[in-house]
Amino acid sequence: MKLTKEQQQEIESLKGQKNVTKRVIAPELEKILFDAIPVLDHGFIRVIDYMGDDTSIVQAARVSYGKGTKQVSTDSGLIKYLMRHWHSTPFEMCEIKYHVKLPIFIARQWIRHRTANVNEYSARYSILDKEFYLPSNENLAAQSKNNRQGRGDVISGDHAKEVLNLLKSDAERTYENYEKMLNQKYDGSKIDENKTGLARELARMNLTLNTYTQWYWKTDLLNLMNFLRLRVDHHAQYEIRAYADVMLDSLKRWVPITFDAFMDYRVGGTEVSSKGKGVISKLINGQKITMEESGLSKREWNELMSAFDMREKIIN
Amino acid sequence: MKLTKEQQQEIESLKGQKNVTKRVIAPELEKILFDAIPVLDHGFIRVIDYMGDDTSIVQAARVSYGKGTKQVSTDSGLIKYLMRHWHSTPFEMCEIKYHVKLPIFIARQWIRHRTANVNEYSARYSILDKEFYLPSNENLAAQSKNNRQGRGDVISGDHAKEVLNLLKSDAERTYENYEKMLNQKYDGSKIDENKTGLARELARMNLTLNTYTQWYWKTDLLNLMNFLRLRVDHHAQYEIRAYADVMLDSLKRWVPITFDAFMDYRVGGTEVSSKGKGVISKLINGQKITMEESGLSKREWNELMSAFDMREKIIN
Amino acid sequence: MKLTKEQQQEIESLKGQKNVTKRVIAPELEKILFDAIPVLDHGFIRVIDYMGDDTSIVQAARVSYGKGTKQVSTDSGLIKYLMRHWHSTPFEMCEIKYHVKLPIFIARQWIRHRTANVNEYSARYSILDKEFYLPSNENLAAQSKNNRQGRGDVISGDHAKEVLNLLKSDAERTYENYEKMLNQKYDGSKIDENKTGLARELARMNLTLNTYTQWYWKTDLLNLMNFLRLRVDHHAQYEIRAYADVMLDSLKRWVPITFDAFMDYRVGGTEVSSKGKGVISKLINGQKITMEESGLSKREWNELMSAFDMREKIIN
Amino acid sequence: MKLTKEQQQEIESLKGQKNVTKRVIAPELEKILFDAIPVLDHGFIRVIDYMGDDTSIVQAARVSYGKGTKQVSTDSGLIKYLMRHWHSTPFEMCEIKYHVKLPIFIARQWIRHRTANVNEYSARYSILDKEFYLPSNENLAAQSKNNRQGRGDVISGDHAKEVLNLLKSDAERTYENYEKMLNQKYDGSKIDENKTGLARELARMNLTLNTYTQWYWKTDLLNLMNFLRLRVDHHAQYEIRAYADVMLDSLKRWVPITFDAFMDYRVGGTEVSSKGKGVISKLINGQKITMEESGLSKREWNELMSAFDMREKIIN
Repeated sequence: MKLTKEQQQEIESLKGQKNVTKRVIAPELEKILFDAIPVLDHGFIRVIDYMGDDTSIVQAARVSYGKGTKQVSTDSGLIKYLMRHWHSTPFEMCEIKYHVKLPIFIARQWIRHRTANVNEYSARYSILDKEFYLPSNENLAAQSKNNRQGRGDVISGDHAKEVLNLLKSDAERTYENYEKMLNQKYDGSKIDENKTGLARELARMNLTLNTYTQWYWKTDLLNLMNFLRLRVDHHAQYEIRAYADVMLDSLKRWVPITFDAFMDYRVGGTEVSSKGKGVISKLINGQKITMEESGLSKREWNELMSAFDMREKIIN
Repeated sequence: MKLTKEQQQEIESLKGQKNVTKRVIAPELEKILFDAIPVLDHGFIRVIDYMGDDTSIVQAARVSYGKGTKQVSTDSGLIKYLMRHWHSTPFEMCEIKYHVKLPIFIARQWIRHRTANVNEYSARYSILDKEFYLPSNENLAAQSKNNRQGRGDVISGDHAKEVLNLLKSDAERTYENYEKMLNQKYDGSKIDENKTGLARELARMNLTLNTYTQWYWKTDLLNLMNFLRLRVDHHAQYEIRAYADVMLDSLKRWVPITFDAFMDYRVGGTEVSSKGKGVISKLINGQKITMEESGLSKREWNELMSAFDMREKIIN
Repeated sequence: MKLTKEQQQEIESLKGQKNVTKRVIAPELEKILFDAIPVLDHGFIRVIDYMGDDTSIVQAARVSYGKGTKQVSTDSGLIKYLMRHWHSTPFEMCEIKYHVKLPIFIARQWIRHRTANVNEYSARYSILDKEFYLPSNENLAAQSKNNRQGRGDVISGDHAKEVLNLLKSDAERTYENYEKMLNQKYDGSKIDENKTGLARELARMNLTLNTYTQWYWKTDLLNLMNFLRLRVDHHAQYEIRAYADVMLDSLKRWVPITFDAFMDYRVGGTEVSSKGKGVISKLINGQKITMEESGLSKREWNELMSAFDMREKIIN
Repeated sequence: MKLTKEQQQEIESLKGQKNVTKRVIAPELEKILFDAIPVLDHGFIRVIDYMGDDTSIVQAARVSYGKGTKQVSTDSGLIKYLMRHWHSTPFEMCEIKYHVKLPIFIARQWIRHRTANVNEYSARYSILDKEFYLPSNENLAAQSKNNRQGRGDVISGDHAKEVLNLLKSDAERTYENYEKMLNQKYDGSKIDENKTGLARELARMNLTLNTYTQWYWKTDLLNLMNFLRLRVDHHAQYEIRAYADVMLDSLKRWVPITFDAFMDYRVGGTEVSSKGKGVISKLINGQKITMEESGLSKREWNELMSAFDMREKIIN
């Protein structure tokens, strides 16, 4: 990730602001506010605004439950209770805004989370930067053999070189042809003074899906956790997980009590179906039960055994 | 529930329709289409339109996963897979519309499910019916002693009579005064020809919260299941659960495969936190663990033991 | 509106906070932050948190349009442009949170704006305050004769007294019977030590719709303007307009440039249909046109003439 | 657009269905149900399901307004009234589902309409078709000189050929390298038996933005009209307008009365700001007013003059 001098100065200037407010603040989050935290080869993520903290959740819950909340003595106890019982509305009372630079194919995954506000850089108005994502060696993986949407072993040696060369040369050539069609270089300079350029809204179609775009993305705490729950999971594509991991750190800085409850009940937790509950009950009581007797499919059986750390019972 | 002759005729006429369509139909749901199914003392619920069936979910999933779904051989297997892994979008491809008559205090709970479309009877435009909810004897319960939002023992005898008398006489008197202020009877007849009536939008404020209202309520299958999951739960207030139970039956008629998966993975399932998983693992392996060692609160411990049917471990 | 001593102290304490932040602040809004601004007889509205200001809208728009926005020289010009062309997403980048005390029948209107986050005081958990809305003399209006959802002349003299007496005595009696059923006074004291009280979730149904409730209500700037556009309109019910008027002032303090554009293009603007455009074109060109020739209904014709201040052309 | 024999047979089979339902049907829409209507060079749009018709809107409105709607005598009058006064909820009672094949850069515009349900073909699971959008000659336009997001003159002759060659060769080469990296041809056949292929979720990043994708897209009538209002406008990019035009025809077949009101009040209508109203009033009254006196910017002035067909007053 390279920031221009202009961008660096703007960030420094924003970080230097000292405004006095009556609103609550999140001190650990203030420390990294506006910082461009690198993600992937040219991407970044920046927290650029937020509203509320852990106490805002508690405050909202106490409005709802009125005098009824007096018996839950601590903020932490109340937040854990809300998380455990899927009380969603108090978590909607906090809001956060990110500035994200990311490859287009990842932006397409990300945007499927609809409950958020987005302003994306428009290639109808402006020329996109000449930056494209190329996986690092350790992330260049073969197609998984048993999971249709997963990755298998890392590709290495000549094979890796060949793949990276293809990705690089195709991205560069399509970008150069994008400039040629626009009759304009990335820096704005005209190529041929006597020629008109193709409309930007058309020329952009020549770019590859690893070209970087950027957007402002704003959501509430509940929907941020819904996003993170799916995207820090090991089933998520590595490239979006890389962003989610950085956002998870911002969650911890912003609302540390909620973060702990989130890790315990959501990220680290599991769900057990009605049939699965029967299996677990029997196992605890020392009874024997086979996959066939359980009514579970092989896949369900293995997921259950894996969740409760009974690797010896997993069936291949 | 009393329907006017006019309403009964309209329902009969709607039920008599035989339109030919190329769309998929849900035969079991067609059987009860337009029927006014009684709920509580004066309420009802009617399915009045729907779109899609189980195959619509499968069809949408197969568009998403393309050739990748070929390996899941059956519709039922695919729907179970989608439900288990919280794939939400295929379930959004089906839509259902209800006509509901319900007490205002229940309407206020219901409306908090925001992802739905609603057209409610407006008391700014028209006069509300003279109908209010009075609990039946078995539903007249005392405040729970250990659950701030729950019910305890049933109230009976003179105490019950007293409560019902208060509810009935207050509802009747406030309704009569509503008519008096409007200078108009429920049937539209004027009371005093020489007098103007108070604006309807003001007069309505005199009614009690057990007055019945009605609305059209439309939602997609995913959000219907979110609603039902919360509202068929035994923690839900009885009066809304009564509606949810009828809707659960319509779910079964509409999308029977999805219904089975929903009952197994959502209604009958449970969630286990990260700490809870550790406890279960130890118990399965025959190790001993106390609540104190578990890191769980008493409440969490009991919820966990209850979920896996270990009543003897519940701590009072 | 009466605040308890405890509430007044809490507000004073919140207003005394001086936190240092790197975020943008809205100085005029900070001045009234946490203040309980009285609305109706017992209601209030408080701004309790916010995120962003006018520059946040500009910043988001400039991300979208990239280098393309350089030609719009001023923030004010850009915001006006966005408002005029219904560019919605930049306005979603700001967020505000209110604490509102309001009568239940108004809360039921308000909640129909779905794109907002809400935490309402729950009468399942806690006892509602003994406060109900009674219209002041100048707001006690008769039903309009030509508008089914409007108000006509003010009711006065003995008629007014009678109406207010009915509203007051019904609200008081139903509240007293609510306490009786709960076997508990508003202040928490038990009435009869030997008796159990009815469940709160049931007893509440005896209250009238003018009883006050309260909630936290959070929305983004775009949806706030959608709300205000409808609710400051003279067709809105007076009681909700009273809240909207106070919120309109908070909008002005928060985002003054956006406020100006909103008043010009939304609140003060009008829409003209395709047929209406034809009528206006002819009138400008000095041609004659009658309602019959225009293709407009009488109602449409009058709305058009009224919008462009041609009262002499209005048809009775 | 080329459909496989398999796809054609499936469509024929779906079109042959004759199911009997009690639900309302839209006869004109049934006629084109499941048809793949060609859009652009390889795209299509198909209506694949719907719920409700014009009478569903009327029915919902009559529930809301109760006895109050009796005075609006006709369905058409009521629908026009609802449209004119922006009553939104009755239009949400109808639902429609499309199957769309479209270039990725258009899909990225389309998806910004959040209030819809989407299932898109996933290139993590499956290989994308070898089809990319190439503009036809009359749509190959230069960048507009005075509108940053618009098109100017058509490009022709050698210049056009050069552009089309670049687009075509880049799309073909990147697709071939996509196959090479996957070690798999579009038809599923392996290229080199001894080699592993790159993970599909990575290889897809090499494709250009004019590659076709497909999805199921479902929305309600209100949000469909919001989409169409923006996308049939001449400011919309031609490529998305091509889809919107076909959808506009489906709107007409589905809800003909609503379609008429939509064309009159939305598509053909205009908005006038508070200042604009003052200008129009003066012009009607034969008074003179210049742009300077009006308080409008040059752009606003011209938009106003253009809306009311006063071309002679437009300022260059």
